[in-house]
Amino acid sequence: MENNYPDEKRILIEKSLSELFPSEDNYPQIIYKAMRHSLFSGGKRLRSVLSLSAAEILDYDIHKILPTACAIEYIHTYSLIHDDLPAIDNDKLRRGKPTCHIVFGEDIAILAGDALFAEAFYLISSRQEADSPEKIVKIIEELSDASGVRGMVGGQVVDIESTGKTIASSTLEFIHKNKTGRLISASVKVATILAGADEEKTKALLDYSSHLGLAFQIIDDVLDTAGETELMGKEAGSDERMLKSTYISIFGLEKAKIHAKEEIEKAKDSLSIFGERKQPLIEIADFVYKRSS
Amino acid sequence: MENNYPDEKRILIEKSLSELFPSEDNYPQIIYKAMRHSLFSGGKRLRSVLSLSAAEILDYDIHKILPTACAIEYIHTYSLIHDDLPAIDNDKLRRGKPTCHIVFGEDIAILAGDALFAEAFYLISSRQEADSPEKIVKIIEELSDASGVRGMVGGQVVDIESTGKTIASSTLEFIHKNKTGRLISASVKVATILAGADEEKTKALLDYSSHLGLAFQIIDDVLDTAGETELMGKEAGSDERMLKSTYISIFGLEKAKIHAKEEIEKAKDSLSIFGERKQPLIEIADFVYKRSS
Repeated sequence: MENNYPDEKRILIEKSLSELFPSEDNYPQIIYKAMRHSLFSGGKRLRSVLSLSAAEILDYDIHKILPTACAIEYIHTYSLIHDDLPAIDNDKLRRGKPTCHIVFGEDIAILAGDALFAEAFYLISSRQEADSPEKIVKIIEELSDASGVRGMVGGQVVDIESTGKTIASSTLEFIHKNKTGRLISASVKVATILAGADEEKTKALLDYSSHLGLAFQIIDDVLDTAGETELMGKEAGSDERMLKSTYISIFGLEKAKIHAKEEIEKAKDSLSIFGERKQPLIEIADFVYKRSS
Repeated sequence: MENNYPDEKRILIEKSLSELFPSEDNYPQIIYKAMRHSLFSGGKRLRSVLSLSAAEILDYDIHKILPTACAIEYIHTYSLIHDDLPAIDNDKLRRGKPTCHIVFGEDIAILAGDALFAEAFYLISSRQEADSPEKIVKIIEELSDASGVRGMVGGQVVDIESTGKTIASSTLEFIHKNKTGRLISASVKVATILAGADEEKTKALLDYSSHLGLAFQIIDDVLDTAGETELMGKEAGSDERMLKSTYISIFGLEKAKIHAKEEIEKAKDSLSIFGERKQPLIEIADFVYKRSS
């Protein structure tokens, strides 16, 4: 893990995921194995670490947000499994490991994604006794909205529909705002809900997360163009192979890098009201940017 | 619709679905169209009608359970779309119409299922202001549990794993209890949660729903063996073509019919504590049985 990434939070997430997620000794084993194959395949845990860091900046006990943060990792993992399917991105590698459908077959991979998504809502609704039911309902509203047709799925659909076509930059923005950005923002928003943050702090954190989400995606495009399979853990150039429009194909590599840098700076500027406390979120923004350099 | 089926409740569900479900004028249109193609393709609305009927028997306002009942139809529809996929059951017809992936492609069908599932939790968490948040959280816990790895998905996985094999009757029971039965039971359970039903009434209704769910599945097997494509609205014999074990392949047609009848009688007997009020649920049980005769 690179410098300054909040590894102690990532480790806490890994530990919680291990504790909370059902063992593969359950029946039928194959589906638990498939879910765990994708859930425990490394990764930065960016979304859940953001939840913890946002909770921290709002003075909310980070241990109390852990089930929600883990549920967000379930949702993220489910979306990766379905994205990788032959009918969608047809990716055979993810984080250097064979994707779920390569190991377990397409049928089990579809169902492993489905089950992870269900398990996310089960975890939140069954394990969050520390929080008020009103807040839990709001969290579920936010996460179901962010992952569905007005969020992740909507972005993915426009991405699919745009494949092989020249698209406007506004369409590309729609794709990324929804496909990637919305769940990143939701990771921060759940912390504002649980902490009962006021309007000003909520706005600051949501501004931060939307700039960060956009930068993250541009940098993903940069890495996908320039990177090597080994570095990315997935097949480099796979977006180009699928004829997808990216920030690079629309703006060129240099402009895309400048755009990413600008978004990172805007993300960091959004946090000024938090004073010194903003440091952990600044470090996450720096980490996201450093991936590209 | 056959005699005695509570058509007024089915019509109320259709009306609510129309009101609650986002229009296909939203962007991106194709995903809304795909979701609506499968959601509004007729069907008995058995699960949501059960929710309304269980609410009624418990003296709970059936209008207040409508968002939850509609959400259960979203979940049921999502499961059908994914079941029909080429990688799973590879069904081209459903209720006499081409399945979602036939019309919209496999990628959009996967995502339409995903989005319907997300929308179910969004609907419950965003539209149920009439009910206490405690109860909403419990409903979400029940539905996410019933649709995930300990419910629908678990049953589907064992079904897939059993294809082409001779299986024990206990395995077949596991498949149906989870793949079909669990969501049917959840449709009744959500009513007991919202109505705050006591233990005795809750047990009676859950006994009813588990016997009904089993009968429903046996009758589905009977129809699939004996039925014609026109009658079933899906390709008859498709389970046999896929070499799946069914109640018929294990017990034979006549024994399966007797078993179904017994389960229907047990379902009806479970309701004795409700006296005259049980009538609507009795009629649903009779309707389920009549499908096979």
